[in-house]
Amino acid sequence: MGFLRNAWYMAAWDHEIGQGLTAKRILGEPIVMYRTGSGIAVALHDRCPHKAVPLHAGRVEGELIQCAYHGLRFDTHGVCQHNPHIKGAPNKLCVRAYPLAKRHGALWIWMGEPERANADTISDYSWFDVDGPYAVTHGYTHVEGGFGIMMDNLLDLSHAEYLHPNTVGTPGSSGSLQTSVVAGDDYVTVKRKVFDLPPSAVFRPHWSRSERIDQVSDMTWRPGANLLLDIRLSAAGDNSGEGLHFPSAHILTPETERTTHYFWAVARNFKQDDRQLTSAIKDAFQQTFTGEDKPIIEAIQRQFDIEGDVPTANFTIGDGGGVRAKRMLAGLIAGEQSVRA
Amino acid sequence: MGFLRNAWYMAAWDHEIGQGLTAKRILGEPIVMYRTGSGIAVALHDRCPHKAVPLHAGRVEGELIQCAYHGLRFDTHGVCQHNPHIKGAPNKLCVRAYPLAKRHGALWIWMGEPERANADTISDYSWFDVDGPYAVTHGYTHVEGGFGIMMDNLLDLSHAEYLHPNTVGTPGSSGSLQTSVVAGDDYVTVKRKVFDLPPSAVFRPHWSRSERIDQVSDMTWRPGANLLLDIRLSAAGDNSGEGLHFPSAHILTPETERTTHYFWAVARNFKQDDRQLTSAIKDAFQQTFTGEDKPIIEAIQRQFDIEGDVPTANFTIGDGGGVRAKRMLAGLIAGEQSVRA
Amino acid sequence: MGFLRNAWYMAAWDHEIGQGLTAKRILGEPIVMYRTGSGIAVALHDRCPHKAVPLHAGRVEGELIQCAYHGLRFDTHGVCQHNPHIKGAPNKLCVRAYPLAKRHGALWIWMGEPERANADTISDYSWFDVDGPYAVTHGYTHVEGGFGIMMDNLLDLSHAEYLHPNTVGTPGSSGSLQTSVVAGDDYVTVKRKVFDLPPSAVFRPHWSRSERIDQVSDMTWRPGANLLLDIRLSAAGDNSGEGLHFPSAHILTPETERTTHYFWAVARNFKQDDRQLTSAIKDAFQQTFTGEDKPIIEAIQRQFDIEGDVPTANFTIGDGGGVRAKRMLAGLIAGEQSVRA
Repeated sequence: MGFLRNAWYMAAWDHEIGQGLTAKRILGEPIVMYRTGSGIAVALHDRCPHKAVPLHAGRVEGELIQCAYHGLRFDTHGVCQHNPHIKGAPNKLCVRAYPLAKRHGALWIWMGEPERANADTISDYSWFDVDGPYAVTHGYTHVEGGFGIMMDNLLDLSHAEYLHPNTVGTPGSSGSLQTSVVAGDDYVTVKRKVFDLPPSAVFRPHWSRSERIDQVSDMTWRPGANLLLDIRLSAAGDNSGEGLHFPSAHILTPETERTTHYFWAVARNFKQDDRQLTSAIKDAFQQTFTGEDKPIIEAIQRQFDIEGDVPTANFTIGDGGGVRAKRMLAGLIAGEQSVRA
Repeated sequence: MGFLRNAWYMAAWDHEIGQGLTAKRILGEPIVMYRTGSGIAVALHDRCPHKAVPLHAGRVEGELIQCAYHGLRFDTHGVCQHNPHIKGAPNKLCVRAYPLAKRHGALWIWMGEPERANADTISDYSWFDVDGPYAVTHGYTHVEGGFGIMMDNLLDLSHAEYLHPNTVGTPGSSGSLQTSVVAGDDYVTVKRKVFDLPPSAVFRPHWSRSERIDQVSDMTWRPGANLLLDIRLSAAGDNSGEGLHFPSAHILTPETERTTHYFWAVARNFKQDDRQLTSAIKDAFQQTFTGEDKPIIEAIQRQFDIEGDVPTANFTIGDGGGVRAKRMLAGLIAGEQSVRA
Repeated sequence: MGFLRNAWYMAAWDHEIGQGLTAKRILGEPIVMYRTGSGIAVALHDRCPHKAVPLHAGRVEGELIQCAYHGLRFDTHGVCQHNPHIKGAPNKLCVRAYPLAKRHGALWIWMGEPERANADTISDYSWFDVDGPYAVTHGYTHVEGGFGIMMDNLLDLSHAEYLHPNTVGTPGSSGSLQTSVVAGDDYVTVKRKVFDLPPSAVFRPHWSRSERIDQVSDMTWRPGANLLLDIRLSAAGDNSGEGLHFPSAHILTPETERTTHYFWAVARNFKQDDRQLTSAIKDAFQQTFTGEDKPIIEAIQRQFDIEGDVPTANFTIGDGGGVRAKRMLAGLIAGEQSVRA
């Protein structure tokens, strides 16, 4: 269905980008990212406007990036400031620069009309701020599957008890499940509650108050494809509002039509200083996303490669969230394309 | 030229399919095969109708196959019998099931209109029955080449003295060769006789009656692409009808337009209990098909990939068999497609 | 922009082609080359006209090449002289033969209309004759990049001080550079002079007359894509005409639209008997072409693969040579195609 361009996409974790050159494709376009000598994070189209050499083959020189082939240098706005081959001022060669904003430990790129980029509209992932009150761990998984397949995956967690029985899923949870879908102008939330169940394997070691729990899991999608899962656990039947808070970020940035950058983070409001626990949580989610979700998503993509992305059946309330989110996104893309045409 | 759909194609040797899940493409379509708890062999479209996950990622549960993603279960007819996510009876989700029949140690699949599937029309390969009077050995070769190239190969054995001089071919055999082509409504047979020659290398160790032989080799093709080579050796000049009988099955199942499953079997009416001989014969044919034919067929396919499958010259009576069989097949396919349109 | 067919392309170094069979694609076409028993070098279309088997899978038998599949034999003109499967004279099966001429230690192939092939029009590379007065070393680099990108590379050596600072480039040379472009009916020459500079790294060990040099570098392109770089070094300010002569051949033969055979040779008029020097020069150029130019050219090609070969900016006189040569070539190709249509 194409890409929504006027939206913020996560480009990298902030700590990934240093003075070295990082090349990635985002919405199909080659992008080079780096940090200048003074620390400004920059995203440019990864193609020198002179002879099309990828700029990531060059190097950073102070505030400028220098092309490997003929030594042209461009500033953070993509304007050529140095051309050793002509006398006088460099001519008007420009490479496209993309707005890049730092929020919540991540760098966000705006691939649409630059004048519409407003960093205040970046989705709120403040639970994942590195210097906030929660303990946080970050990860990344490259997936050979389209972001639409991943939206379906995340907006219908009924797969967890089948695909993730030994990590985040609880076998038998569909028995007590209550779900509902809430949608606004720019979001879709799938709300799930399960009652009186043993905690899933990842929570079991950290939960000592009772043998059984109630669990609320709200998954919210915002365009382009930024998702947030807000999980709260309490003792079964306890409505006091006390318990564990375990939010996770699931941020999808299309690399191409059929591959996705999957940035994820997990935060918690308990045992924040327990580094061993942080490491164990990271391992468990790495296993869940990379070892369990990724193979299934890639198998679906290969199926689509062979026989096309024909409409698939929707049969549960869980499916409804993905359907509504993809319909909303398709509408936004169509609106953008009609304005352009 | 596309595929003939209303025909039996060999899907697997019967012993290949157990309770594990076997995935293969046949006529371009992804197929999953397995055996239920009660032993029924099943072939389904390898795509869950819910979210397009290949069913081969799941597992067999008794008489049902369960999808890895959301736990839906389908019966041997492809009908969903279990959906844990909805109350009451499962809805009408179905995956396509393909007729699958066992004959002569093999499982045969029908990719066309199910009501036309009649297992009695499966080609007769009874010489290769595992419990029959002949000794049999089976093999499989995956070929990165279209089945049309392989039909040409098998229906013109004049290549044997050049490509297989050390196994099944006899250098100089074209000198005494007599060939003819016989065709009926649903078959083409190329008949070859050579006289007064030394036996080819594979037969030499098993032939002690005389120094020179006469050999009759009848290759019969039936649609889709099921071939049988009936070889009979006798002492040169001996018309008593005694001698060795050495039939071989050459069963071509298109995987895609440009790749082929090549199932083969070799039977004999002599020294049936000599396992060492059976093993030697298997090795010799493995070498012939995998080591000698396969590279040439794949080289032709690569040529077609670059420059197209332009008509090639036909210059001998041997060529005539391939030309007639491919013409008959093209007619059958055209007939099928005009009915569909 | 397609290929110019009526032109000589280098097919191989003469010493590469023996009685074994060498297969290469040239202008996208599969070609087989070999030498007959009597020493004639032959280039044929690498496809048997019978069943499309690549002829390189066969073998040379005296003056004939024999197909691996059915034993047909073709002479140096591509005419079938032996068909063991028919009685009487072989029929009129022919494979296309390409004119092939030896000049300057290389074999040149003519891919156009045979009657227009005139070996006297092969570009003059006599400085590279193996038995001439110069010391010569030869090389080959396969490049996953189109020949147009390589023409731009060779016709604008201003990249050398950035891409090759430790071999053939001299940092700072653009300061004293004088360039001009001269074009005739069938060539474009880019003339470069630099004054009063230290010699580049490859020349430094062989230059003892002065600390600083003047250097003249004339790069001439002729269609298809045959380039010759004529470098002359002299002591800075010395106009006597004495000094080093260091010509190099840069011969581009398109393999496909996006890959190139890059044949190169380096000659010199000094220390001709110093084999260690010859070896050091070969290593330095191997490093320059394979280690430095090739990765950049391939990165440009990958960029074109993703985002197309959109017109890139031209900003220096150096660019002008590539622009003029590519425009001249495009005109020649258009002329050829309009004649054909």
